[in-house]
Amino acid sequence: MSGEKLRVVLVAPRNPLNIGAAARAMSNFGFFDLHLVNPYEVAFREARSAVHAGAVLEAAREWGTVAEATAGCKLVVGTTAVGHRELKHTVRRLEAGGALIRAALAAEEPVALLFGSEKFGLSNEDMSHCHWLMRIPAREEHGSMNLGQAVAVCLYELIRMETGGVSMAPAPGKKLADAAMVERVADLLTEALNESGYVHSDSTPVKVRRLVMRMGLGPHDAEVLLGMVRQVLWKVRKG
Amino acid sequence: MSGEKLRVVLVAPRNPLNIGAAARAMSNFGFFDLHLVNPYEVAFREARSAVHAGAVLEAAREWGTVAEATAGCKLVVGTTAVGHRELKHTVRRLEAGGALIRAALAAEEPVALLFGSEKFGLSNEDMSHCHWLMRIPAREEHGSMNLGQAVAVCLYELIRMETGGVSMAPAPGKKLADAAMVERVADLLTEALNESGYVHSDSTPVKVRRLVMRMGLGPHDAEVLLGMVRQVLWKVRKG
Repeated sequence: MSGEKLRVVLVAPRNPLNIGAAARAMSNFGFFDLHLVNPYEVAFREARSAVHAGAVLEAAREWGTVAEATAGCKLVVGTTAVGHRELKHTVRRLEAGGALIRAALAAEEPVALLFGSEKFGLSNEDMSHCHWLMRIPAREEHGSMNLGQAVAVCLYELIRMETGGVSMAPAPGKKLADAAMVERVADLLTEALNESGYVHSDSTPVKVRRLVMRMGLGPHDAEVLLGMVRQVLWKVRKG
Repeated sequence: MSGEKLRVVLVAPRNPLNIGAAARAMSNFGFFDLHLVNPYEVAFREARSAVHAGAVLEAAREWGTVAEATAGCKLVVGTTAVGHRELKHTVRRLEAGGALIRAALAAEEPVALLFGSEKFGLSNEDMSHCHWLMRIPAREEHGSMNLGQAVAVCLYELIRMETGGVSMAPAPGKKLADAAMVERVADLLTEALNESGYVHSDSTPVKVRRLVMRMGLGPHDAEVLLGMVRQVLWKVRKG
């Protein structure tokens, strides 16, 4: 498996100790590509200047949006320790989801693994960028997990050696369009809807993105659909 | 598996945050029996008085020796993230050792799982109380793991569900929109494309239908998409 293809994305982390702990777990398990979306500035600075910060934190990149942080990824997975929230997404237990991620990485496909803020986890907007969610099988009663521990447990699952004989031969995984492409399709479709007078609410862009995500478009289909929407949008504007 | 039979033993922990993190990981994964051997007094006190200390820390017991802390256990296992030290003991990777511990717990045998101090790990004297050692498969280059993360990863391995091939089949049959509905979406989309001047050939309707088929729309998504296309088509015609 190629650890290089996994992007760990921390969304809005607040605590320098947690950022450092996440980076340390990555280094422990052989993952080096850390991205932060809107980190609390002071926290990021403190984490970087800590004694044991190390190479992962030094090379970490900062972004303003989840879309930017996941651009180019073929598979975007959000993590949650909570099961009872009403989730619109497919939720897989870590054991099963981890196998799918391993399969994607084995096929050299870039994967983004998202972790939400310590206090609130991933927002609905954050989740709308995800193909599916992965649940760490912690007790519901306890609530959320510590961020650094959640990262450690997920990454361990990815490098874990299958002891159970043959292995769980990963479903031959359909090849998916990358996240930036899905984003373009969703954006353009939202625009076409706006200009057509489709009943609009603040949540429309999120709903549209989720819908497009659920289509599970392959690279070619995404191109074709983008061309279609572009043409229709042109006509709508011209009309 | 009975979580009650597992005793988590922290030997000479120094940092209150780590003690708290270990307790939190235990609660997350359903283990409640925490023991400390010669903790740094101030650290233990601080950990207990922390806001999120919770029941595990409150009930934690303190001992002067490893022998006392492990008394009555049928199986005593030491943990290490380091492989290169000259170890007199059998060392098992976490995946394999975890299976043995699960088996012991399933047989209602009390098990102690030892974690060493943040700085030095378990001493030779500590290890001499262990039946064998369990190694978390972290990169050797990186050195030791964070204590709270080590506890989280080991406990996760214990509660991990064996997926053994069976289950990771591609999510239990998603419900699909019926053929007539797919047809309507495809027809309307083809019409919108025609009216927008999308390059047309005789095969366009077929291509559009195939594309929509590949989206694997659920019943609700099909309705939503149909509504969207209808609105855009209305606008295109009106324009």
